[in-house]
Amino acid sequence: MKPKGNLVVGQSGGPTAVINSSLAGVIQEAKKHDVEKIYGAVHGIVGVLNEVLLDLGKEDPSTIEGLRYTPSAALGSCRYKLKDEDYGKVIDTFTKYNIRYFFYIGGNDSMETAHRLSEIAKGKGYELSSIGIPKTIDNDLVRTDHCPGYGSVARWVAIATRDAGLDTEAIGIVDKVKVIETMGRDTGWITAATALAREGDKDAPHLIYLSERPFIKERFLEDVERIYKDLGYVVVTVCEGLKDGEGRTLVESKRGVDLDAFGHAQRGGVSEYLCALITRELGLKARADKPGTIQRVCASLASRTDREEAYLVGREAVRYAVEGNADLMITLERESSPQYKCIIGTANLEDVIGRVKPLPDEYISERGNDVTKSFIEYARPLIGDPLPTYVRLR
Amino acid sequence: MKPKGNLVVGQSGGPTAVINSSLAGVIQEAKKHDVEKIYGAVHGIVGVLNEVLLDLGKEDPSTIEGLRYTPSAALGSCRYKLKDEDYGKVIDTFTKYNIRYFFYIGGNDSMETAHRLSEIAKGKGYELSSIGIPKTIDNDLVRTDHCPGYGSVARWVAIATRDAGLDTEAIGIVDKVKVIETMGRDTGWITAATALAREGDKDAPHLIYLSERPFIKERFLEDVERIYKDLGYVVVTVCEGLKDGEGRTLVESKRGVDLDAFGHAQRGGVSEYLCALITRELGLKARADKPGTIQRVCASLASRTDREEAYLVGREAVRYAVEGNADLMITLERESSPQYKCIIGTANLEDVIGRVKPLPDEYISERGNDVTKSFIEYARPLIGDPLPTYVRLR
Repeated sequence: MKPKGNLVVGQSGGPTAVINSSLAGVIQEAKKHDVEKIYGAVHGIVGVLNEVLLDLGKEDPSTIEGLRYTPSAALGSCRYKLKDEDYGKVIDTFTKYNIRYFFYIGGNDSMETAHRLSEIAKGKGYELSSIGIPKTIDNDLVRTDHCPGYGSVARWVAIATRDAGLDTEAIGIVDKVKVIETMGRDTGWITAATALAREGDKDAPHLIYLSERPFIKERFLEDVERIYKDLGYVVVTVCEGLKDGEGRTLVESKRGVDLDAFGHAQRGGVSEYLCALITRELGLKARADKPGTIQRVCASLASRTDREEAYLVGREAVRYAVEGNADLMITLERESSPQYKCIIGTANLEDVIGRVKPLPDEYISERGNDVTKSFIEYARPLIGDPLPTYVRLR
Repeated sequence: MKPKGNLVVGQSGGPTAVINSSLAGVIQEAKKHDVEKIYGAVHGIVGVLNEVLLDLGKEDPSTIEGLRYTPSAALGSCRYKLKDEDYGKVIDTFTKYNIRYFFYIGGNDSMETAHRLSEIAKGKGYELSSIGIPKTIDNDLVRTDHCPGYGSVARWVAIATRDAGLDTEAIGIVDKVKVIETMGRDTGWITAATALAREGDKDAPHLIYLSERPFIKERFLEDVERIYKDLGYVVVTVCEGLKDGEGRTLVESKRGVDLDAFGHAQRGGVSEYLCALITRELGLKARADKPGTIQRVCASLASRTDREEAYLVGREAVRYAVEGNADLMITLERESSPQYKCIIGTANLEDVIGRVKPLPDEYISERGNDVTKSFIEYARPLIGDPLPTYVRLR
């Protein structure tokens, strides 16, 4: 069964350094097949709802090629969850434009949208191939070895931690502790990747705290003090979504009152909270780096591997669709050879949605303040080229 | 007068992406001259005080060459201001090691140290050539067109603002306002450089707030609301040292109570304060990016021009010293040809110390929420190669 008609592709959720590479993959592959029109939904499913569609076939081929090196989401993104009353409207738009292929590049919520559209279309007898293309810096989609977008943010935080680690090594006699806060609301994948910064035993990061383990203040302070006594300075990396023993996000639970005074409780800020804690309890000057969205969209430091894989999942999504498949997410499957190699696979969308993949226990050190060698082996190939190496005196 | 003896070089203040390039310049040039031993002071003047000196002549030449691409301060840095009782000890160390050349790579405080050592040596009849090598991301030393270290942080914040600006453009229908906080305690040079991110009129940053102008809440909110109504999203860049109408650092003045509860008033956090203000007063979701020390030590995104100039000031410092000069700071003088070109000059250290160069009025827009074209013309050559360019759909 090979549906005949037009195609629409959308981008959703947080932008990344390589989500446009997936878009380029979709467009360039679609041009090779019997697809009449290639539409881009502006701001994802919101663009479909409001009939704001770009005719991507009219773009210059060099523009499409340039998407492979352009960060953020060129079509515009959204975080819109379709309401029950929206589905009819979406199918109406599809019908009006004779859309038979729907590709949604995004994370968990986007996969749910793609799946529900698949089901609604089936229920209405509307022939539609709805395919999810994985994209999330959070790396928390199940059924895929990793998610495009992750390798680049992992590379970024590794480089930043290596450089900012040398900074603390140099000026640590004054600014004794540095806390680097990475993204990662529910899982610690991004923070874990800061471990890739290390070359030697004493290199930053010295401590890594992940959402998968409850934050215990006393142990944290013990850890920081121990490293400080050993080296004279400490670099700590933490997840923005760090949680206390009762599962509450650390900053919300500890500073909820302050933030409520502003009428708004925001995530983030855990690094500043920890710096204040370190200064108060250990008497050590501490400073917080919180690069925020900068870490996720830096094209200049993107992982070459990630960029290529992002392209590949876009391209393969089209190939699966034109071969008559539907209601799938494209996946990356790691082959177990010693040399890193990923091949393309698929998963049923219904097996993906509503589930989150935390860092497995085997990737977290026993004390919960570091990652394991297995994690390094998992993550190293994803960041692409080797990190820049530097010289040392003595 | 050409003093005969050994050399010591130290690094001081905040590390940068290119301070080691200046160090390489000193060492490689010194090897060409009649200097017996080349010492590196570990942690700057603290290393001299404690006689912790590295024999840099023993380092492999490839290590010295590698310093040109190694961020942070390879000798270790400090923020130590010599006390009256320290000077005798420093001269004792110099005498013991027959140090006749002292090079201090740093900012204002380092220039003061270099100058006072010059004076003390003169008073004691100890022949010493003490030379200051400019280094500060803050770009606030007088008598030099700009300071090595600035071009690289300027490039970093420009790239980050371009990329994170595209991020907000894509997801601005959800995360409507982004506030990026750059370094810059007393001056707005770094924040101003975010303007280099722009290609078109509507590109980020849409508003730039500098330490040189008092922050007026009502005008700020007016500005943000106006841009939001026009574009649907806003990217603001601000200085960490933003001050209110009475000259008090904004965060200290507004949140002093909160911070005192932690026993410690820290700079920074102005971006989170502004986000809370925007959300409360305008009802717009806002998020803060505060890259902190990461912005100042990123070798991967360093400015090629900055790296070369940093090398040059190190090399020329040695040439001036061996020619018998003393008590000087090396400067960069821009030639007025249309093509960017800087030549080396010098300033007397006593004319440099204790003074700070703010952004001049001609570089700040009338409303105080942007920079002028003159600033762009000044700053553009300093960031080296053109920024990465991206494609746009439509």
